[in-house]
Amino acid sequence: MSEKIRIGILGYGNLGKGAEASIQQQPDMELVAVFSRRSPESVKTVNPNTKVIHVDDAEKHVDDIDVLLLCGGSATDLPEQAPEFAKLFNTVDSFDTHARIPEFFENVDSSAKPNGKTSIISVGWDPGLFSINRVLSESFLPEGETYTFWGKGLSQGHSDAVRRIEGVKNGVQYTIPSEKAIERVRNGENPELSTSDKHTRECFIVAEDGADKAKIEETIKTMPNYFDEYETTVHFISEDELKRDHNTMPHGGFVIRSGKTGENTNQIVEFSLKLESNPEFTASVLVAYARAAHRMNKEGLTGAKTVYDVAPAYLSPQSNADLRKKYL
Amino acid sequence: MSEKIRIGILGYGNLGKGAEASIQQQPDMELVAVFSRRSPESVKTVNPNTKVIHVDDAEKHVDDIDVLLLCGGSATDLPEQAPEFAKLFNTVDSFDTHARIPEFFENVDSSAKPNGKTSIISVGWDPGLFSINRVLSESFLPEGETYTFWGKGLSQGHSDAVRRIEGVKNGVQYTIPSEKAIERVRNGENPELSTSDKHTRECFIVAEDGADKAKIEETIKTMPNYFDEYETTVHFISEDELKRDHNTMPHGGFVIRSGKTGENTNQIVEFSLKLESNPEFTASVLVAYARAAHRMNKEGLTGAKTVYDVAPAYLSPQSNADLRKKYL
Repeated sequence: MSEKIRIGILGYGNLGKGAEASIQQQPDMELVAVFSRRSPESVKTVNPNTKVIHVDDAEKHVDDIDVLLLCGGSATDLPEQAPEFAKLFNTVDSFDTHARIPEFFENVDSSAKPNGKTSIISVGWDPGLFSINRVLSESFLPEGETYTFWGKGLSQGHSDAVRRIEGVKNGVQYTIPSEKAIERVRNGENPELSTSDKHTRECFIVAEDGADKAKIEETIKTMPNYFDEYETTVHFISEDELKRDHNTMPHGGFVIRSGKTGENTNQIVEFSLKLESNPEFTASVLVAYARAAHRMNKEGLTGAKTVYDVAPAYLSPQSNADLRKKYL
Repeated sequence: MSEKIRIGILGYGNLGKGAEASIQQQPDMELVAVFSRRSPESVKTVNPNTKVIHVDDAEKHVDDIDVLLLCGGSATDLPEQAPEFAKLFNTVDSFDTHARIPEFFENVDSSAKPNGKTSIISVGWDPGLFSINRVLSESFLPEGETYTFWGKGLSQGHSDAVRRIEGVKNGVQYTIPSEKAIERVRNGENPELSTSDKHTRECFIVAEDGADKAKIEETIKTMPNYFDEYETTVHFISEDELKRDHNTMPHGGFVIRSGKTGENTNQIVEFSLKLESNPEFTASVLVAYARAAHRMNKEGLTGAKTVYDVAPAYLSPQSNADLRKKYL
């Protein structure tokens, strides 16, 4: 590897910050700039040497950047940004609105392909690494069941929901996988499990002065869709405790394939993540896929791609000969 | 999928039997024949309808077979068979002599490539799926340590070693991963662990009548390289118990990457297998990679390949559009 892969980051929230840190760990990459919609002076990067450029000027940097990481959100940013920037740059994004992925893929593909660019979409761990494990394990074990458990992890959507309740000053919600359900799956029982069978929910709530805590707890536990079908625990804590103990974004989960081979032989394949920071890990996955986007583009593999299209060797900084010698 | 992928199996031991069963589970494959060095009449296949052909006649079937699974052993069969048959067929093998993989790769490549064939070598779970997980997790988390634990599993080499001891009529040895060591790794401690720190050994021995059991146990526990550095447990059982309780070939293991991102954030990636039958699972992996060999060959991707060169989509019977829609 003579020249480093030149990376740009578009969007500087938690994911963009994670990408900035991850690129520093990679031996064959350099961060060219962060692009932001905010005025560049107002963006405080973790590394003070990181260059910040207004997104309107991104087009001037097409020759300085090998891959642009799209670190915006899936709700409104990516559906607009990905097709736009895929015309100019190789891109990697973490679009995670599962139901809209086919449409998103087509939109990005029709931007990237005619412009000779490579865009790897929906990268991260779910969608991403979990998706790979679902497909691989089902390919090996066609007869069986695949189970996905999420957590222990902070759920942004559920945290928002509890914070909207009257009398709640602040709060967070964790999704917790059921140990009992995981054990049944690992034992090859192939149980039928709903999402609420597989998970419990735990809330840490800061109540406003004089609020009716019993009523808050009741409102949470009976909230339709969010909590009513789940075993839910509610803890009341102080604002200081919330800031001290609940200021990180842990997450993780398990994908377990329980299959049968031969006469009636149980075979269990399991992939799991235990992440102290969800955005930092997701960003680290995006950064490795940027290496793949760059290499695949150089080989003429253009258009929209997903993790299913990327051979493992494209993700590693090591040569194929070294991978065979040292890791096989 | 209009036409089924036509598979041949070369070698009919435990792996070949596992492949026969796995192909029956795959919606898009058919088994054309088993090729054996034995006389075809003497080979009793699990499915009585399976055609058995002498290996000397394999060359006559180059037009009937899309992929030949090489199910021989790594010690003597594969180093000879793989370069020979890679001239005639697309092949998949499970060559697992780690130190000799680079040389094996070159030998197979120089047979396959000039003949326009595709050979995926060293497929299975280790080498194979474990190798993929080592490379992927290190690509995402360059700072950290990777740990491999094997077991609980029957070790053929160690079982042979105990059976050679005077007074031992029969016996098996299991390698067992240390729960304590696994917990330390999962907790992000990044401990330094030797192979003997990570595993214990358990033997089930049938002693000959009148044999000195204390001496047998002592001989096992002090056997250099095989047992002396390990915590070893020896159980004496009857021949009937051995046949009843120890007639299967379970195996499995764990690949755990414990990495750091950002300031000092722990991130744990884990892949594990719990297999009731090692050969049936390994065969199932080979069969899925046969699909990849066939598709890659049709796309002109010829020569020797490893699991690092195979994009996940090649392994699944489903279309890329379905993978995006249903699994991403």
